[in-house]
Amino acid sequence: MQPKEVIFVDYSLLWLDWKPKDGLPEYVKRIVGTPATRQGKAALRELMAGLSAMGAETEQCSGKPDDLPAIRLKEYPGQDEKVTLRRSGDGMEISGSGQGLIYGVFRFLRHLALGEAFPEWESSPAYPIRMLDHWDNDDGSIERGYSGPSLFFRDGRPICTERTRDYARLLASCGLNGCCINNVNVHGNALKLLTGSYKRELRRIAACLAEYGVSLWLSVSFSAPIELGRLETADPLDPSVRQWWRETCGRLFAELPNLVGFLVKADSEGRPGPHSYGRSQAEGANMLAEAVSPFGGKILWRCFVYNCTQDWRDARTDRARAQCDHFAPLDGQFRENVYLQIKNGPVDFQIREPVSPLFGHLEHTNSMAEFQIAQEYTGQQRHVCYLIPMFREVLDFHLEHRAERDTVAENISAICAVSNTGSDFNWTGHDLAAANLFGFGLLSWDPSADPELIAREWTILSFGADPEVTDTVSGILMRSRDVYEKYTAPLGIGWMCAPNNHYGPSPEGYEYDRWGTYHRANHLEIGVERGPEGTGYTQQYSPGLAAMYASTEDCPEELLLFFHRLPYAYRMKDGRTLLQRIYDDHFEGYEEAKAMAEAWENLEDKLDPGIYARVRERFREQLRCAAEWRDVINTWLYRLTLIPDEKCRTIYP
Amino acid sequence: MQPKEVIFVDYSLLWLDWKPKDGLPEYVKRIVGTPATRQGKAALRELMAGLSAMGAETEQCSGKPDDLPAIRLKEYPGQDEKVTLRRSGDGMEISGSGQGLIYGVFRFLRHLALGEAFPEWESSPAYPIRMLDHWDNDDGSIERGYSGPSLFFRDGRPICTERTRDYARLLASCGLNGCCINNVNVHGNALKLLTGSYKRELRRIAACLAEYGVSLWLSVSFSAPIELGRLETADPLDPSVRQWWRETCGRLFAELPNLVGFLVKADSEGRPGPHSYGRSQAEGANMLAEAVSPFGGKILWRCFVYNCTQDWRDARTDRARAQCDHFAPLDGQFRENVYLQIKNGPVDFQIREPVSPLFGHLEHTNSMAEFQIAQEYTGQQRHVCYLIPMFREVLDFHLEHRAERDTVAENISAICAVSNTGSDFNWTGHDLAAANLFGFGLLSWDPSADPELIAREWTILSFGADPEVTDTVSGILMRSRDVYEKYTAPLGIGWMCAPNNHYGPSPEGYEYDRWGTYHRANHLEIGVERGPEGTGYTQQYSPGLAAMYASTEDCPEELLLFFHRLPYAYRMKDGRTLLQRIYDDHFEGYEEAKAMAEAWENLEDKLDPGIYARVRERFREQLRCAAEWRDVINTWLYRLTLIPDEKCRTIYP
Repeated sequence: MQPKEVIFVDYSLLWLDWKPKDGLPEYVKRIVGTPATRQGKAALRELMAGLSAMGAETEQCSGKPDDLPAIRLKEYPGQDEKVTLRRSGDGMEISGSGQGLIYGVFRFLRHLALGEAFPEWESSPAYPIRMLDHWDNDDGSIERGYSGPSLFFRDGRPICTERTRDYARLLASCGLNGCCINNVNVHGNALKLLTGSYKRELRRIAACLAEYGVSLWLSVSFSAPIELGRLETADPLDPSVRQWWRETCGRLFAELPNLVGFLVKADSEGRPGPHSYGRSQAEGANMLAEAVSPFGGKILWRCFVYNCTQDWRDARTDRARAQCDHFAPLDGQFRENVYLQIKNGPVDFQIREPVSPLFGHLEHTNSMAEFQIAQEYTGQQRHVCYLIPMFREVLDFHLEHRAERDTVAENISAICAVSNTGSDFNWTGHDLAAANLFGFGLLSWDPSADPELIAREWTILSFGADPEVTDTVSGILMRSRDVYEKYTAPLGIGWMCAPNNHYGPSPEGYEYDRWGTYHRANHLEIGVERGPEGTGYTQQYSPGLAAMYASTEDCPEELLLFFHRLPYAYRMKDGRTLLQRIYDDHFEGYEEAKAMAEAWENLEDKLDPGIYARVRERFREQLRCAAEWRDVINTWLYRLTLIPDEKCRTIYP
Repeated sequence: MQPKEVIFVDYSLLWLDWKPKDGLPEYVKRIVGTPATRQGKAALRELMAGLSAMGAETEQCSGKPDDLPAIRLKEYPGQDEKVTLRRSGDGMEISGSGQGLIYGVFRFLRHLALGEAFPEWESSPAYPIRMLDHWDNDDGSIERGYSGPSLFFRDGRPICTERTRDYARLLASCGLNGCCINNVNVHGNALKLLTGSYKRELRRIAACLAEYGVSLWLSVSFSAPIELGRLETADPLDPSVRQWWRETCGRLFAELPNLVGFLVKADSEGRPGPHSYGRSQAEGANMLAEAVSPFGGKILWRCFVYNCTQDWRDARTDRARAQCDHFAPLDGQFRENVYLQIKNGPVDFQIREPVSPLFGHLEHTNSMAEFQIAQEYTGQQRHVCYLIPMFREVLDFHLEHRAERDTVAENISAICAVSNTGSDFNWTGHDLAAANLFGFGLLSWDPSADPELIAREWTILSFGADPEVTDTVSGILMRSRDVYEKYTAPLGIGWMCAPNNHYGPSPEGYEYDRWGTYHRANHLEIGVERGPEGTGYTQQYSPGLAAMYASTEDCPEELLLFFHRLPYAYRMKDGRTLLQRIYDDHFEGYEEAKAMAEAWENLEDKLDPGIYARVRERFREQLRCAAEWRDVINTWLYRLTLIPDEKCRTIYP
């Protein structure tokens, strides 16, 4: 089904912009098999178009296959996402459900484009829910969006354009199967997505997504019964409230066959929730879960619940503790179609945080890891910051709660990321930020995927197969997170960014504010003590981890200031003082950013001029901002301590 | 002339809400004299209405006066603002031009309301231009407005309502004669005020103001020839630009007979100006002055020109120097109908600044003092802060440039304040902030007026004549500036407020920003040295003042951190350390604010319940915010120094 309202927008196809390829195997000349489902047909279409773009002259052979080498598409019935690529005679076979064929075809095309050996692949995704959360508002703005206006909303209404379908293609091509199109902070007309007011537009969007097996999710307001239903309460135990949700879901799921469920931010940063009525998070979530249950619906319930009106004078309350304090005691109380959405770290998407201990406390509850590829705190797509290595660290992390299947990846049942996409030509603002979108997709399918291989693959698909380009760009990507970390807030302390816009340095910007994110630095010491003598946050981990983090000796150095309050004179393992380590990191971080920018500039002759110029501009801004970070953090610490840099580099007094 | 478009708004009449009065003199029963001019008639009407409100049964006696005691109105021809009140037989006489009669009648009514002895008053205003600048935007918002939406604009258009006339009455009643209705940052439809697009609305506003002798001024954009005239330049020496302004002024002054001239913010904080074309400020101002000259027009040219993109690393550039550096060399180059508008201090309306040295450099140029009764940096009309004593200090300040007529008051030719009014019921947000409006008016007429008498007079006119109310409220007003100063940024250092909104504490909020307002505090010292060894700012004063300010011994202590970088251990004259003085001020400031709030609460039985409750709410917010200021500033300094309070009061670590 084609969208009827087509608005022409010029945009890149990113890694789906297949390039002509020499030496394609003989069997690509023929495709045998006629898929019956909508998704299977889409798979066939993608295969034909992809091969054609690569220069093959492919014909579809209907009827009984002869002995000539061919690509055979075998479609099985059902919604299974499993896919198999294997040799078949002199050709190959891609088999799966219609949905599986889509993944298989994209995988096959990537193999060809990368010039890899013959693909043998039998795979199922690690999680049945692999999605992006869009923080898109009804007016077309995006909360924490850095890539232009929304793909899904304009002027107070949902929109479906030609680009919607290409977006679904991009998501499916890297393994994603879901998309929540509106902001978790539900405002304005977005409230009315539940009412049928935008039925026509939503059905169009849903159809575009469904063709590629991407499900539709909606963010809903917990107080919708008041705002829309004119009830006087949104109490989850109130019969009229339950009735309102049941009726609303009945209508909505009938209107939108591709709808899978709701994402809910409740009792968080001013949003309404069950706590307003003296009910638990479980009572709130279960009420919604019951309402969507008849339609096979699911509820994604955010665990981002904390006191966002903390008094900075209050040194006992520790925001890092909040999620475990709220949710760990409720394990086992949630319905089976509720997924607790847990941010990767205990605070909020900083460049360095420990893994959220809550992952280890949900033995009898579905959990979902929430990452953020929108670079809210990681350079806002003006700095290059490839996040996939960091996500792998989180997924690989051993919670030490059980003997087997103990990693985060093995504990969760679902995975999502806050999207970094918008209507910019290149979808992600910074051309290199598309690697995070692609990489998150691959990781959501297979959490053991190698971030460096992903980076290399993405580079070749995006910029062509020149080995120097591949080495240079993937090298930049692989270094980029450490570089960003070095010149920004040191050693896990976080939150030294400008309040509100979260860009650029402001070392005391959050210090006297209500957000619970303090470093309490003075002339001698910096940081919040989170060991047993401090806020006790470390005790939320299993005993081994708790002991490790509580010990300044054993705590990983990159997290030292997340867990401990330490004197500037504290000796790091290599003998440097804590302060000197921070100075060094900031000087080095800037130099390394400069080296990345120079490496990019050396590729000028080998890259598309548009891409080259856009990324060069971003690097210029990154260098300007990195110098600002370096100098502000160093000066701020110098003014506090009056201890100079041992190497006599410039710190402004 | 009544405005045609009447929109009913409920609002207070402030000090013009005359109250019934016993013991009125016999002569108030008769008024003799029939003024001929529009202003004279308004004066008569005010007199009749005021006397009636006070309970007199007054009749107007036309024809030849008999011997019965009466108020005689004698109107002279002309625009002269001089007014005389004197005994005349058993009655009294008010004489002046129509305009003079307005001032005389309001003065006489105040005398009656205050129960003062028989008024003998012969007075002329100190300055021919005594005005308010409104920073009102076309959408009805007010930049730095804290009293509700604009009185002059709504939904992108100028508006004239019943309230416009009452606003003119309020201004005239305290001696003001001018009003610039739109923001100096000219945006949106406000650009089109020059085009005739809003001729009808502007004529109505002008007529309402004119009835009370209040002239209309407009803020204009220096680049209007580009924005409106479609020229390619706004170069003040370009013949087509000069022609465009001449034609525009010809049409505009013909349309608006009550228009007096333009206010211009040029080359300031991103506004266009003559510097963009390599021309001097004088060339820019004179070009406009020439264009308005045929119509008797005047140009108010703001001197708020400084580098607002300073690098914080740059310790040589000193924003405090900027106005003198830019304008002092140009003395004598401006046309006689140009007035240089100079803020009272060298930076920007902080609670404590020295007097701008520029006032002493303009021997051959008209200058205008600019004050701000909008409490941008002084509590935003949520804190009580009576500014009239501070304005008196500025006006009384001896510049030491000449032997006679050496004060600021004697050097300037005009006076204005950024208005604190809006559409709130009480016009000024905080009921007590109306004292700043009233007081600025009286001071603009007579810069030697006594701030305390003004406070007492305003209190009686506003809240009635109960002596306890008068003593308490005027006492609060008189203490309020010192109290606010004590709990906010210490000793003239300024700028420790939150960036952007300028409310509440943020001691490092401006420290790494581009605005040129730094304290550069470290573990041992705080402040910027502005003496000859520092930025040299002190040398902009005459030799005696320069020497005084340059010496830490002689510098007034309340300005110590404006002029000097000092160690926290510096000994104040009373033996306390600088740091202890700051701690003490902050603890005391809060306690004094609390005492003011309690004094107010003691008046509950004696005040109108609406006023009482509104002001009590404001005091609650003031106390909340004062505690925040106290604790944040003290904690910030404690963390820097680790020196505790000698008196062991609570400083959060």
